Amino acid sequence: MSKIKIGIVGYGNLGKGVEMAIAQNPDMELVTVFTRREPKSLNIITEGVPVCSIESAYQYKNEIDVMILCGGSATDLPEQGPKFASIFNTIDSFDTHAKIPQYFEAINDTAKKSSKVAIISVGWDPGMFSTLRLFGNCILPQGKDYTFWGKGVSQGHSDAIRRVDGVVDGRQYTIPIDSAIEAVRLGLDPELTTRQKHARECFVVAKEGADKAKIESDIKNMPNYFADYDTQVHFITQEELDREHSGIPHGGFVFRTGKTGKNGETSHIVEYSIKLGSNPEFTSSILVAYARAAYRLSKEKAFGAKTVFDIPPAYLSPKSGAELREELL
Amino acid sequence: MSKIKIGIVGYGNLGKGVEMAIAQNPDMELVTVFTRREPKSLNIITEGVPVCSIESAYQYKNEIDVMILCGGSATDLPEQGPKFASIFNTIDSFDTHAKIPQYFEAINDTAKKSSKVAIISVGWDPGMFSTLRLFGNCILPQGKDYTFWGKGVSQGHSDAIRRVDGVVDGRQYTIPIDSAIEAVRLGLDPELTTRQKHARECFVVAKEGADKAKIESDIKNMPNYFADYDTQVHFITQEELDREHSGIPHGGFVFRTGKTGKNGETSHIVEYSIKLGSNPEFTSSILVAYARAAYRLSKEKAFGAKTVFDIPPAYLSPKSGAELREELL
Repeated sequence: MSKIKIGIVGYGNLGKGVEMAIAQNPDMELVTVFTRREPKSLNIITEGVPVCSIESAYQYKNEIDVMILCGGSATDLPEQGPKFASIFNTIDSFDTHAKIPQYFEAINDTAKKSSKVAIISVGWDPGMFSTLRLFGNCILPQGKDYTFWGKGVSQGHSDAIRRVDGVVDGRQYTIPIDSAIEAVRLGLDPELTTRQKHARECFVVAKEGADKAKIESDIKNMPNYFADYDTQVHFITQEELDREHSGIPHGGFVFRTGKTGKNGETSHIVEYSIKLGSNPEFTSSILVAYARAAYRLSKEKAFGAKTVFDIPPAYLSPKSGAELREELL
Repeated sequence: MSKIKIGIVGYGNLGKGVEMAIAQNPDMELVTVFTRREPKSLNIITEGVPVCSIESAYQYKNEIDVMILCGGSATDLPEQGPKFASIFNTIDSFDTHAKIPQYFEAINDTAKKSSKVAIISVGWDPGMFSTLRLFGNCILPQGKDYTFWGKGVSQGHSDAIRRVDGVVDGRQYTIPIDSAIEAVRLGLDPELTTRQKHARECFVVAKEGADKAKIESDIKNMPNYFADYDTQVHFITQEELDREHSGIPHGGFVFRTGKTGKNGETSHIVEYSIKLGSNPEFTSSILVAYARAAYRLSKEKAFGAKTVFDIPPAYLSPKSGAELREELL
């Protein structure tokens, strides 16, 4: 059986995670890594795989079955998504929730014209969490959703800390509040404010001689990022930050609580939770599974943009329907 | 918009649950309940809906979009499944895991010939748990699966107790063992025997003058059902059984633990758990959501037998793709 040929665009944490995930899936092979950096400056893990300039990707039009876009949602994907979907089947992890509808439309137009499949917004949220929210809503239409994130590193909030005057480096953990989770688990259907759901913990390296009280206040009062949360700020050294906070763990919880029965007298609680040693490695493992689905959908000529909502679970697996029914049903 | 017209075959706990679930879904309506009993002997909840003999179902060929089969897997569904799939789109909860492959083939042949859609083995296990096992296996191919059931009432084990000489009535709870679940949650990847995963607790009403020591021993040593488990037997009165043990709660856990990274150095834990006030009401809520998918697949002429693995999550929802992307992704 010939393998599914994968290309990677962008070799940051996510791209590297995709490379490692491909090595765990014997029906796939990595063909090329594309980068905006000088290709020779990159040392990738897989032996014998070339690193090429992103500008040369078009030449690989017939060599690659699915291109996995590993750029960020702020500036990379809005430009790269449509461009690559005009040439390749693609997978991306576009995660700016508010802009998903317009991103979907842009990619859908392009992919239909180019006869390609583009699965967007793949990962755990959006992605697996969204799928679990959808299952919960459909099975228990009279109910409530709760999503908690963490404990884990938020890249966006860590970046925000680093932009504060007097800060050299920083790392922010999003922490779901245990008592809120317990209340949901007990079926109390609590109404929770932003502050009651998550807390924020910051580890900050300050410039020598900087006004730490002002830094702390600037962080805690930053609108959108921190002002609506209980935030702790710890000042530490760069060495300590590098030693204790270099990992990228994450996690989270999706709940659906609902009622059934003649008068809604029966309660049910569904909980999905993840504890991730590495956020980018887990996300990239999901991207790779959905690459298999994109490949299969392209063979069926089901062209256009898709999301996780559109993909039959069996399409993620290398196994046949008969094998899945026998082994996993 | 015209509603999806549903028929129910069999009006036990599951059929009644389906009836109540339909009332929670405004895009559906219950057309008829079919029974093997004398139709006049049934009092159903929904006003104005006729109860008919199962023999008359064929006459409703053009009135019903999806027939939900609420019979049991031992004797009802092997006979009813193919019969109804030759006339209607169907949903069933066939749950004899070992016989699913041959049941699927029988239904698939029939449904393809009759140009109908039949989604088999829908519920929570097989069903949602299977889907979560599949997601876990595809995302973390280097990993382990754990499924725990309970705490909840096992109908099969309760029936087994009632067949013991000297027993008037009984109820059996399957109990997942906390320390085993904790070991999985901690990422210890334990190897667990049958006895280490679940315990069994029995509440038994004995005949007056029966030999309780013998009943207890007969239960505890019953092969397949109890011999491989730590089993507790409590003798209680019929009144106490009726008062304290008439509910049908259930629940369970599906875990996927896995490794990623260059040398499998990163650990991830995915957990899905449910706590159900009523097993049949939750199961029937799932059946109703998949009836929506069967209806849509039949409009697309995607005929034949399907399982939950073949259904895109969006097909369970009454909402459009655009609504789902905006609200739940």
